[in-house]
Amino acid sequence: MDRGLLDNLKELLKERISFSESVRNNHAKGEDAYDPVLPKAVLFPNNNDELSKILKICNEYKVPVTAYGTGTSLEGHVVGNDKGFTISLENFNKIIAINEDDFDCRVQANVSREQLNENLKDKGVFFPIDPGANASLGGMAACSASGTMAVRYGTMRTAVLGLTVVLANGDIIKTGTRAKKTSAGYNLTNLFVGSEGTLGIITEVHLRLSPIPESIMSAVCHFPDLDSAVLTAQEIIQYGVPIARVELLNKDQMDISIKYSNLKNMDILPTLFYEFHGSEISNKESINVVQDISKNNNGSDFKWAANTEERNTIWKARHNVYYSVKAQGDNVRVYATDVCVPISNIVECIKFAENELQETGLKAPMVGHVGDGNFHVTIVYDPTKENEYAYIREFSNKLIDKALQMDGTITGEHGIGLQKKEYLNKQHPDNIPLMKLIKKSFDPNNIMNPGKIFD
Amino acid sequence: MDRGLLDNLKELLKERISFSESVRNNHAKGEDAYDPVLPKAVLFPNNNDELSKILKICNEYKVPVTAYGTGTSLEGHVVGNDKGFTISLENFNKIIAINEDDFDCRVQANVSREQLNENLKDKGVFFPIDPGANASLGGMAACSASGTMAVRYGTMRTAVLGLTVVLANGDIIKTGTRAKKTSAGYNLTNLFVGSEGTLGIITEVHLRLSPIPESIMSAVCHFPDLDSAVLTAQEIIQYGVPIARVELLNKDQMDISIKYSNLKNMDILPTLFYEFHGSEISNKESINVVQDISKNNNGSDFKWAANTEERNTIWKARHNVYYSVKAQGDNVRVYATDVCVPISNIVECIKFAENELQETGLKAPMVGHVGDGNFHVTIVYDPTKENEYAYIREFSNKLIDKALQMDGTITGEHGIGLQKKEYLNKQHPDNIPLMKLIKKSFDPNNIMNPGKIFD
Repeated sequence: MDRGLLDNLKELLKERISFSESVRNNHAKGEDAYDPVLPKAVLFPNNNDELSKILKICNEYKVPVTAYGTGTSLEGHVVGNDKGFTISLENFNKIIAINEDDFDCRVQANVSREQLNENLKDKGVFFPIDPGANASLGGMAACSASGTMAVRYGTMRTAVLGLTVVLANGDIIKTGTRAKKTSAGYNLTNLFVGSEGTLGIITEVHLRLSPIPESIMSAVCHFPDLDSAVLTAQEIIQYGVPIARVELLNKDQMDISIKYSNLKNMDILPTLFYEFHGSEISNKESINVVQDISKNNNGSDFKWAANTEERNTIWKARHNVYYSVKAQGDNVRVYATDVCVPISNIVECIKFAENELQETGLKAPMVGHVGDGNFHVTIVYDPTKENEYAYIREFSNKLIDKALQMDGTITGEHGIGLQKKEYLNKQHPDNIPLMKLIKKSFDPNNIMNPGKIFD
Repeated sequence: MDRGLLDNLKELLKERISFSESVRNNHAKGEDAYDPVLPKAVLFPNNNDELSKILKICNEYKVPVTAYGTGTSLEGHVVGNDKGFTISLENFNKIIAINEDDFDCRVQANVSREQLNENLKDKGVFFPIDPGANASLGGMAACSASGTMAVRYGTMRTAVLGLTVVLANGDIIKTGTRAKKTSAGYNLTNLFVGSEGTLGIITEVHLRLSPIPESIMSAVCHFPDLDSAVLTAQEIIQYGVPIARVELLNKDQMDISIKYSNLKNMDILPTLFYEFHGSEISNKESINVVQDISKNNNGSDFKWAANTEERNTIWKARHNVYYSVKAQGDNVRVYATDVCVPISNIVECIKFAENELQETGLKAPMVGHVGDGNFHVTIVYDPTKENEYAYIREFSNKLIDKALQMDGTITGEHGIGLQKKEYLNKQHPDNIPLMKLIKKSFDPNNIMNPGKIFD
């Protein structure tokens, strides 16, 4: 590396630049299936101005940078670059403002969703986008995350009102306003949401909040087979029930989660986890409809969470699905698919996945935000056995083709990263030239997380 | 104009290119306050392929083009270019697909929202984005419209799932999918939404639909003064009532609308028009809360629409507000403001506007989607008197500054066009360089509606 470059950075950051192997290793990948790639160093800026100076320097020397938050990405977004730096945002950890009367707040990028909700809970509001992992809000914006409550509350694409972004040339810009809606020029906010660190580094996020509902009720319902469970979710959506969560766990996943999360009184059967948000009266109405639909599809009696603690146990088990799968072996990796299809195709798409998996003989836990038409097959494999990955990728390829045939998307919420670049080319071959034009005009030296989303 | 250019276009379009003054005049402006500017000709392509060929030719000859739908724009978006062509999309008038089971549909750009809803009404679904005017859905996407139901159902930014766009170089691209959410690369859909014809011409729109609610109830409530009405709207939102519409008309506007729309049993007082969508039970709950809040703020007893016809009368009067104001004189023009602020600032912002207007002595009807913090002052003026426009613009400048101080936006839903370019520069000076980079990379010859949004 150029001596001048390192001198400049050391002068700027003092001890907040680390060349230690363990630090570099800790910032070499996310929770994805990739081999770690160690960056030359990890930088720890304290604020926008420092980050701006870092990027100016790196841009001058044409050195690639990758932003790093909580490292919960599943698609290789934060795999390091051995010719460049990883920039940890861990010092961007402050909640800047909470405006509960306007249902909005502003946070620095590395504030996690749990940290935010902890700070909101006495104010009658909460932040509903919940990808499971306790991800950073900047990372969730960068990857266009969503999760278990998207069926009712939307995604990061709808929850982000504005951003502060530091660009490749060091410019610091602020997009959006605190108004609920705006038509003021090109929607840069939604261009940076989902840009995966390739257009700039998100350092502040302005978020829409929701009122904490008067009544929250959670229930679990088992089904004799997967089709019945998925069809139930489909019918709930088609009926127009304003359900807050309707999450599928297949039989394999229930088996794993019951053991991993020590769940009591649960059966190893395809299962839906429901949650209802509203007034007591409106929840009662929704619950009646959902009970009728579930029963018609041979669902079990509902097992209700009796109190907040029991409710938290259920959702913690759901949130820990990824970790429960990963715990199936030592040194295993997890490959997670993420297709999303129109709701009327979800039964056929999940059935297709199940049949294909049975043919391969892979153990295949599945979870799904089925109310959105989005589900994940999370497959454990041994990275030392090349055959296993090849099998999985073959299955994944087939599922991608099926989802695209059904007017769906290759990724409902995980993004592209490294893992889905060839799939993006299948889904949007005619969009990629435009994406590249934007990338080139914002980042002419290609220093911002290069090689992610597209080559 | 170059002979070769015209020969090429005539060969392509035959009689579907018009040089007639009346046709050019009919496509020379929208419902904005601008002088008409006649294009050289108006072109009437039949489909994407023809439009692609037109743009290829125009790009080769570097001739500007402006797309034209229903002409209901208020900000000068469709004011013609005397060195170029206006492209009428009137032949893009077909509904391509309705997937009521998935709550989505695909339409050609010039299908109007009323035409769409007419075609949906037997299918149990409707399209809720309602800007008042019977605008084309392509135009609504291009201008990032919203309207009376945004408070419940969102805006075009959230309702558009995907687009077909013809680019300056003639490329035809398709963004988005039918899935409810996607994280597949840069969000080009939301880049074209709100780009006002400057990045490409939207020819097809894929829209999210909503289930027709079991019960729809509309009521009118008068207030002794403007503050009380606005405060009521604010409190309804802060309480978290899932109201479908909460529309303000000030005293001047009520006076005009009662006469123009022949409304019975209405008082000339500041007024809120409410609408509730839900089950009978949930509506009853919402109505109880809204009645309590209204009464606490000295609101009148609710005047209920007894049936669909009466409901339609109320909302037709609301939709006709713009035309009712325009009917206040012959050859008058209307200047409409469009600021949008966080809900806790709406009372102060509207009071500021009212005070400023009283000082100028202008007659000032006001309407507001106050649940979103968005309101319009619609001022009639005589374009032959230069002073009048100067006064209005001075008032508008002050209101813009006030809204920006309050973390709001210069435009909630009308867009920038010609009228707000200098205001965009106040709101987002640091965003404009990026917008221009995108514009330049998509449209290097600057043929797509040049001079709109920014110079």
